Amino acid sequence: MGSVGLVSPQSMHFAQPMRLRSGAQLDDYTLVYETYGTLNAERSNAVLVCHALNASHHVAGVYGGADRSEGWWDNLVGPGKPLDTDRFFVIGVNNIGSCFGSTGPTTTNPRTGRVYGADFPVVTVEDWVDSQVRLLDALGIARLAAVIGGSLGGMQALDWSLRYADRIGHCIAIATAPNLSAQNIAFNEVARRAIVTDPDFHGGHYREHDTLPRRGLRVARMIGHITYLSNNAMESRFGRELKSEVLGYTTQDIEFQIEGYLRHQGDKFSEYFDANTYLLITRALDYFDPARGHGGDLARAFAAATCKFQLVSFTTDWRFAPARSREIVKALLDNRIDVSYAEIDAPHGHDAFLLDDARYHALLRARFERIAEELT
Amino acid sequence: MGSVGLVSPQSMHFAQPMRLRSGAQLDDYTLVYETYGTLNAERSNAVLVCHALNASHHVAGVYGGADRSEGWWDNLVGPGKPLDTDRFFVIGVNNIGSCFGSTGPTTTNPRTGRVYGADFPVVTVEDWVDSQVRLLDALGIARLAAVIGGSLGGMQALDWSLRYADRIGHCIAIATAPNLSAQNIAFNEVARRAIVTDPDFHGGHYREHDTLPRRGLRVARMIGHITYLSNNAMESRFGRELKSEVLGYTTQDIEFQIEGYLRHQGDKFSEYFDANTYLLITRALDYFDPARGHGGDLARAFAAATCKFQLVSFTTDWRFAPARSREIVKALLDNRIDVSYAEIDAPHGHDAFLLDDARYHALLRARFERIAEELT
Repeated sequence: MGSVGLVSPQSMHFAQPMRLRSGAQLDDYTLVYETYGTLNAERSNAVLVCHALNASHHVAGVYGGADRSEGWWDNLVGPGKPLDTDRFFVIGVNNIGSCFGSTGPTTTNPRTGRVYGADFPVVTVEDWVDSQVRLLDALGIARLAAVIGGSLGGMQALDWSLRYADRIGHCIAIATAPNLSAQNIAFNEVARRAIVTDPDFHGGHYREHDTLPRRGLRVARMIGHITYLSNNAMESRFGRELKSEVLGYTTQDIEFQIEGYLRHQGDKFSEYFDANTYLLITRALDYFDPARGHGGDLARAFAAATCKFQLVSFTTDWRFAPARSREIVKALLDNRIDVSYAEIDAPHGHDAFLLDDARYHALLRARFERIAEELT
Repeated sequence: MGSVGLVSPQSMHFAQPMRLRSGAQLDDYTLVYETYGTLNAERSNAVLVCHALNASHHVAGVYGGADRSEGWWDNLVGPGKPLDTDRFFVIGVNNIGSCFGSTGPTTTNPRTGRVYGADFPVVTVEDWVDSQVRLLDALGIARLAAVIGGSLGGMQALDWSLRYADRIGHCIAIATAPNLSAQNIAFNEVARRAIVTDPDFHGGHYREHDTLPRRGLRVARMIGHITYLSNNAMESRFGRELKSEVLGYTTQDIEFQIEGYLRHQGDKFSEYFDANTYLLITRALDYFDPARGHGGDLARAFAAATCKFQLVSFTTDWRFAPARSREIVKALLDNRIDVSYAEIDAPHGHDAFLLDDARYHALLRARFERIAEELT
């Protein structure tokens, strides 16, 4: 098993306006993407990888001259890996509204000549999928062998299966949910409030004030990070381990190792992630709810699906618990749709979908072998 | 079952310095407290109620001229109620470091003549219990029939049983834990960072700057509130209910009812609770760990206990889960100590300890009847 090696992002400009679910319109936009492997002559071996909150189009491989630049799913995607780039043409796209190159709050608003900032419109999972469809049209790919994603990426994969049923062979939705619970929304909302009430937020136009709402982003990331890890993982990794052997009796300095870890995660995040993007992407999570247009009946929503499904959840994931995946499985079974479901006994919580668990990867390898066989 | 009716807080000044666990010293201090019922001639029917993070000495009854001024455990304490003030002399004490009258960050530092603010020393559960002991000495109460508390209040009850074993007949520890988990500390730490990094915090001397770190307190309370409620309670009460029928496609305005609820809780809290107190009390939670002085062996820690124990947990409490109470029960059983344990099937999460659940209150009623019989 190897790496896809050195990769470079590509970009494509779309001059045709796109109407968003909010009613707003993007007059034009750019998508940044990467591809790995080779599109076959039948153009049938393409697999789209959808990213979650803070990831990007950079799924696999490394950038030249950059240490530790492996893509976020590099353990899954590459020659001989479960999603085998010797067999599949893999595409990663940075979603609009994100902050890694595609049109979003950090890019220039053509109407004003200034950075969008808070003026960038609210985007939804459906908007992202629509924009991904346009990219595939431009690449001449009429049908995807599969769409795969974890967490928010899984929601995009589900939306593909519902609204572009004839353009997708397999939907692989991992550690995801048919919608956010009240508790999920609550955590998102606290994180957003931390950002929005940071005096350096300036109503979302912080770049014009030459500053960044770092305080808010740090707190937002710390909250998020707690929910990505399982209680047990946090306990076995940090427990009550102290930073030094003697208690300092302080409320502001670090006493416990878990505090230092969380602060470090918050600091890192606040330096590379855009605050407006954080607001937009958590909102896209909140809004996703395919049953909403069907009176809350998820089975009716999935009546539109025709592809084959692989659902995966992780036992210790309390952000998107196995019960949420089972709701999707039930809705699919109610429609007699081909679905496999695996509940992986992994200790890591929600983050498990990004990690290299043997049973999890063996399962995805088997699924992609089945998909590859169907192509021939 | 009635109310204890109109009540008034009392206060007692202690001129004798108190050395704290941190090494710091309070030269003198005041404790504010309330009592309900009548101390019997043998002075044997006193029950101490210990409060948690944001509560106070005002356990039961109402204040004259104040609407909605019921004490925080008014459903439990009163004539004919489970903790029956016709039989027991009940004492509620505001802990030092709190912000409801006892010496703390909002009171005047006698050394400087200014409000303590951030100069108030870090306090621990053990410090609180020591100060409670002094109050009981002053009231002429050599031995308590029982100490009862939930959450952080339960930790104080446990500490009483360990360090003042000969002064307590029963320890009733509800929805508590032998120490905080890494996840518990993590939530406390995020809340503290939100407060400390609020520009209006001014290093904890916000009152001198005539302001309050309301932004930080709001976020802290929102985080806390999520952890007090069970996932299911939040789901059945709010679910994905929208504020208005049409989505607004906004990241800053309220779309979902749960958002409005949390913001309201945060707003309220930021108006009445002191930020330095929040830091101190969450730190006291972090530090509590009776096994620490015994090589991490909780059973060895509880070898010092001689009173009878009642432990109670709630099935949906994920902040202090039943498993944490069971650790305490096991440590007690290892020492062949008299302990009853009830795991109440309640939907409300951690907050259940404050609510009027029939099985829960019947259990406490039975316990206090047993205690009353032992007095006669």
